[in-house]
Amino acid sequence: MVAAAILPELATQLVVPVAAAVGIAFAVLQWVLVSKVKVAPEPRAEGGSASAAGGKDGATEYLIEEEEGLNDHNVVLKCAEIQTAISEGATSFLFTEYKYAGGFMTIFAVLIFVFLGSIEGFSTKSQPCHYSVGKTCKPALANAAFSTIAFVLGAVTSLVSGFLGMKIATYANARTTLEARKGVGKAFITAFRSGAVMGFLLAASGLFVLYVAINLFGLYYGDDWEGLFEAITGYGLGGSSMALFGRVGGGIYTKAADVGADLVGKVERNIPEDDPRNPAVIADNVGDNVGDIAGMGSDLFGSYAESSCAALVVASISSFGINHEFTPMMYPLLISSVGIIACLITTLFATDFFEVKEVDQIEPALKRQLIISTAVMTIGIALVSWLGLPYTFTIFNFGAQKTVHSWQLFLCVAVGLWAGLVIGFITEYYTSNAYSPVQDVADSCRTGAATNVIFGLALGYKSVIIPIFAIAFSIFLSFSLAAMYGVAVAALGMLSTIATGLAIDAYGPISDNAGGIAEMAGMSHRIRERTDALDAAGNTTAAIGKGFAIGSAALVSLALFGAFVSRAGITTVDVLTPNVFIGLLVGAMLPYWFSAMTMKSVGSAALKMVEEVRRQFNTIPGLMEGTAKPDYATCVKISTDASIKEMIPPGALVMLTPLIVGTLFGVETLSGVLAGALVSGVQIAISASNTGGAWDNAKKYIEAGASEHAKSLGPKGSDCHKAAVIGDTIGDPLKDTSGPSLNILIKLMAVESLVFAPFFATYGGILFKIL
Amino acid sequence: MVAAAILPELATQLVVPVAAAVGIAFAVLQWVLVSKVKVAPEPRAEGGSASAAGGKDGATEYLIEEEEGLNDHNVVLKCAEIQTAISEGATSFLFTEYKYAGGFMTIFAVLIFVFLGSIEGFSTKSQPCHYSVGKTCKPALANAAFSTIAFVLGAVTSLVSGFLGMKIATYANARTTLEARKGVGKAFITAFRSGAVMGFLLAASGLFVLYVAINLFGLYYGDDWEGLFEAITGYGLGGSSMALFGRVGGGIYTKAADVGADLVGKVERNIPEDDPRNPAVIADNVGDNVGDIAGMGSDLFGSYAESSCAALVVASISSFGINHEFTPMMYPLLISSVGIIACLITTLFATDFFEVKEVDQIEPALKRQLIISTAVMTIGIALVSWLGLPYTFTIFNFGAQKTVHSWQLFLCVAVGLWAGLVIGFITEYYTSNAYSPVQDVADSCRTGAATNVIFGLALGYKSVIIPIFAIAFSIFLSFSLAAMYGVAVAALGMLSTIATGLAIDAYGPISDNAGGIAEMAGMSHRIRERTDALDAAGNTTAAIGKGFAIGSAALVSLALFGAFVSRAGITTVDVLTPNVFIGLLVGAMLPYWFSAMTMKSVGSAALKMVEEVRRQFNTIPGLMEGTAKPDYATCVKISTDASIKEMIPPGALVMLTPLIVGTLFGVETLSGVLAGALVSGVQIAISASNTGGAWDNAKKYIEAGASEHAKSLGPKGSDCHKAAVIGDTIGDPLKDTSGPSLNILIKLMAVESLVFAPFFATYGGILFKIL
Repeated sequence: MVAAAILPELATQLVVPVAAAVGIAFAVLQWVLVSKVKVAPEPRAEGGSASAAGGKDGATEYLIEEEEGLNDHNVVLKCAEIQTAISEGATSFLFTEYKYAGGFMTIFAVLIFVFLGSIEGFSTKSQPCHYSVGKTCKPALANAAFSTIAFVLGAVTSLVSGFLGMKIATYANARTTLEARKGVGKAFITAFRSGAVMGFLLAASGLFVLYVAINLFGLYYGDDWEGLFEAITGYGLGGSSMALFGRVGGGIYTKAADVGADLVGKVERNIPEDDPRNPAVIADNVGDNVGDIAGMGSDLFGSYAESSCAALVVASISSFGINHEFTPMMYPLLISSVGIIACLITTLFATDFFEVKEVDQIEPALKRQLIISTAVMTIGIALVSWLGLPYTFTIFNFGAQKTVHSWQLFLCVAVGLWAGLVIGFITEYYTSNAYSPVQDVADSCRTGAATNVIFGLALGYKSVIIPIFAIAFSIFLSFSLAAMYGVAVAALGMLSTIATGLAIDAYGPISDNAGGIAEMAGMSHRIRERTDALDAAGNTTAAIGKGFAIGSAALVSLALFGAFVSRAGITTVDVLTPNVFIGLLVGAMLPYWFSAMTMKSVGSAALKMVEEVRRQFNTIPGLMEGTAKPDYATCVKISTDASIKEMIPPGALVMLTPLIVGTLFGVETLSGVLAGALVSGVQIAISASNTGGAWDNAKKYIEAGASEHAKSLGPKGSDCHKAAVIGDTIGDPLKDTSGPSLNILIKLMAVESLVFAPFFATYGGILFKIL
Repeated sequence: MVAAAILPELATQLVVPVAAAVGIAFAVLQWVLVSKVKVAPEPRAEGGSASAAGGKDGATEYLIEEEEGLNDHNVVLKCAEIQTAISEGATSFLFTEYKYAGGFMTIFAVLIFVFLGSIEGFSTKSQPCHYSVGKTCKPALANAAFSTIAFVLGAVTSLVSGFLGMKIATYANARTTLEARKGVGKAFITAFRSGAVMGFLLAASGLFVLYVAINLFGLYYGDDWEGLFEAITGYGLGGSSMALFGRVGGGIYTKAADVGADLVGKVERNIPEDDPRNPAVIADNVGDNVGDIAGMGSDLFGSYAESSCAALVVASISSFGINHEFTPMMYPLLISSVGIIACLITTLFATDFFEVKEVDQIEPALKRQLIISTAVMTIGIALVSWLGLPYTFTIFNFGAQKTVHSWQLFLCVAVGLWAGLVIGFITEYYTSNAYSPVQDVADSCRTGAATNVIFGLALGYKSVIIPIFAIAFSIFLSFSLAAMYGVAVAALGMLSTIATGLAIDAYGPISDNAGGIAEMAGMSHRIRERTDALDAAGNTTAAIGKGFAIGSAALVSLALFGAFVSRAGITTVDVLTPNVFIGLLVGAMLPYWFSAMTMKSVGSAALKMVEEVRRQFNTIPGLMEGTAKPDYATCVKISTDASIKEMIPPGALVMLTPLIVGTLFGVETLSGVLAGALVSGVQIAISASNTGGAWDNAKKYIEAGASEHAKSLGPKGSDCHKAAVIGDTIGDPLKDTSGPSLNILIKLMAVESLVFAPFFATYGGILFKIL
């Protein structure tokens, strides 16, 4: 009927795990290279470091500023001590978070099993297939059981990814600081390699677990590919629901600490950022790791898992799936496999082929990573599309079939990939202080905080325009060429360079922490200048990472939405029906509701933090003079407790909305809600991230005073700078809590709807049925 | 076939103009009552007043504070002088604005004629009807000509409405100030009556012009009702396009002046609001009149005209229209007629049946207006639905027909009316400082401006939830009962009490100005306390007015959207097609783009104002001491020039988007854009207005210090208060420029699409046709 793919099944069965293994091996290699930097100068000193961390008597001597090379031993010890404190705080928080996440996971696993099992009344009898007319598929109960297993698998992989990322980051931060003594190039390489460990580990393990799950589930499902990939969708749901806790909990944690620390430290007490006298400083640094590293890792892992699942579900009911052609069926996984190799080559450009020697080479080096990975990957996609797909095949398109050529699918993946690059560069333009938008915001500080805020909000709103056009263009092209399968692989295309994306993204918080450690360890001005330069570049890459995360989330959600609609048996989602329209309107409101909760949570938690920090400054004698040590642990506890408590309401909103709407109002209204949340949420997410990033860098622009214009606004402590600090503080929850959490909102509601689609299709819309 | 309406055609032909005449007479009566307050104590003094206004020598004596009753003559003269300055500034701005608006109107009128005329190649031959199969309708060229005339008529009515409103407000402000000497009740009645003049004049003249236009156009169209009401739609487009200039231009004007005045006056120079030494103070007061009065008037007139047009268009192709039943066809106008009478009765409750004696009776008196008008109007709707509609009739429903009963239509109108009340009360809850949300925002000022902004933004986001549910419920009910006709009459229901709504809305800026005049005329503390109390209540009613404006805009846009879709011959707007989906995504982005432009415009204009005000304080000797007079005129000119220049790009965005999308991408994509802009814009509009209102009242809460809690945050000039002032300043462009302008964005794009629908249906989607 149609020609088969060139790549035989056996080759595919080898390529995927081998690529995953190579990725993991590369991550381990990078880790070994990072671990060569010793934080304990001699074995003997290790004990000393541990005792110093516990003892109070050692506090005073570490507060004396050291010159580089001088008294090396003490600086190293101090760094090790701080690193331990950060790592312990982060570990303790993540364990607490995971305890709650685990509880949630258990409850939700039961829910999935009960809801999906109830469809056929928990019958163990086989059922007629949904799409392949005339064939017999596995019982709904089996799908329920395997969906539940896949959910748990996805959840656990997500948690492990986040945890490992955090461990690596806290392992690397002090090492980056210490390397900064030798020069900016050395420090850069350490931070970058550590980021790469996380990037490759996450990309490779996500791929590997998915591959293994498909093969193991396949043993039971046999030729029922419909059921197999329906069950696999649970993997995406598991990944994203844990990401919700990571992003929201971590986001509240990090910003409560950060805002609290800044409000008292920078604004009231006029002490620098990361000053060891600030009681919230450890909590702040812990926050970077649990929010920006663990949260971000879980988020992107979730996107990756979901876009793979969305593509697989649509593929399973397209001609590949019906004809059981293994290689084209695995096309999404092949893309990711090649992605790992492409990113590996890209990484070598930063670590081996070029060398960063000067401060102003950092940002170009990171930007080069984006361009190289995109270029290399374009070739990779062409190769996979040629080898892995038959020249002609048919794709399921909302009840109809659509004929697609392999080169058209290449275009779908490529447009996603390149749209990601465009979003990355636009984000950089609007958030880097090398360009006029941020400089205008900085300039508006002349007339105070109010104009700074007005200009910053306007900048964020404006920064939405081009990314939305880029996303719209990708959607239009991929949707027109290959329906929802095209959108799903476009999302995969954007995420195919995830290893590089995560590497440069994780680089940011690691450098931020490195700077913090340098400050706390009282290292020389020269070293802090180097870590500041690393950090400034990291701010921009963090914004780029968020841009990617949001862009891919939009594509992923649409693909999941498409898969949901297919599975729920809807053929049109007509805005001209009241059910759909009110869904659209209410859906567009959800991101506001969600943001209101997360922002208020950060605000309230920050207020508590401020009170505690003020209390310590007022009651601990000698704290301001640096002769007494603050009580870091209480601040860590406040952030932990607040974030755990506050993450429940927004989490419940996201998790319950699809269940309530689907059950009471039915699949049409739910489709409206998903579409509304998607088109509205993506705008707020982009604008919130970019506004926050711009305020942060406007402040840094004034502080650095690198140009005549910047000097006229500064120095630190001037009225302009104070206004800029206010903007930066407002931006914190926008860019690190509410903005990025919205990715999860739109993805998670879509994947949850997809998993529960069989239930809604059977029992949904109770309210309308009664009326 | 179906029973006719009880009310005969002749009665309908009488009821509508009589109600309009009664409304106008009542407005004139109120105006006469207001005019009894003399601003020129003796005829002889009139000349003196005029010369004082021109001469500089009189300046010093007016800056001496007067006690009430003492030296009455000078205070009155001073008030008259200020009133003249404000009135002249407002008139001069509006004339400049109207010059540009007139130019635009001419160009756009030509565009309408050319686009619509081209459909049948400017042929003067009759054409087959679009809906009434087998019948012959008037040529497209005639529709083009009459649409153009209707457009000009709507535009002129809108401009006249805005202008008259401004004239009344500037006539009333000093009178309110003078009456405040006699007590708060007298002042309240003056401000309220003046608001009523505007409310009734606008509601009645809008109705009257529409009625006359239908009857005059009918002379030509005869029994071609399809063409007649298609042409009448131009009236809505004309009304709304002028409202765009009013809202955007006026919004930029008022906030540039306000922000500029506050940034230098309150923040830098520490002088009170409305202090006559502030050079921007006259511009600020002018701004209230051109933005909040003229802009708001045009906006609500536009909504009223559009919802009537949307209802008439759908009705004309429903059974009334096809059977030529005049009375049910005029149901939308009958609703408005009864609305005028209901509002007239309501007004008497504030002016005659009850009397405001104490400060704390003001807000309840205004709130009572909302409740009474809603209750009275519910009876009115029941009456009109019973008398004006046949018991059963059919409604056009996207290609199908739907059978509806008159009581169902009663429910549609009533649900809109009551949803308006709900939105009003929720808005009050979130923006009045009598409740915890605003008090929490005020409390967050303890930790500075940053937490104030975070809490304020979160409050705005949260305040969206219930209004959206209220709108969604109204849409669901009216949509389910009577398709798009139901939605259109629900919008009319919400707007049926427009006379009362506008009265209490216009009351706000009049009181605000009255306070400003009291301050500038150096009147006693006691009088200023009275005007402050009037103003505080006005802040809340202004927020309620904005809530109404946004809620009705959402319903109106949906109704217009429905009419557009019907006219363009689309039967489904399926989100699952790439054309529609990218439209939805890009449409949801437009409000951000638009807000970015308007906010940045306010910011830039405010910066210019700040420079000028600073310059005057630095270069005019004796200004701070009150011995020299500032140069008010230059500040007025800066605001005027900036707002004229800056209103062009956002105006172009709104006006060109439907034309470009419709012509290049076709009607499906345009449907997506309209739906996206609607569901996204309504959220930003509500949250922006409420955030701004809450910040304003949080500041007032701290200033008033009426409770223990408020006292602990104050007094004026404390750190908390400074943080609150920053929030207030940020809120200014949100609540008075970008937020309310979004109403226009969503309505105008929809009505423009409707007017151009015949063109798009014939020639649209060029780009896709080429590809």
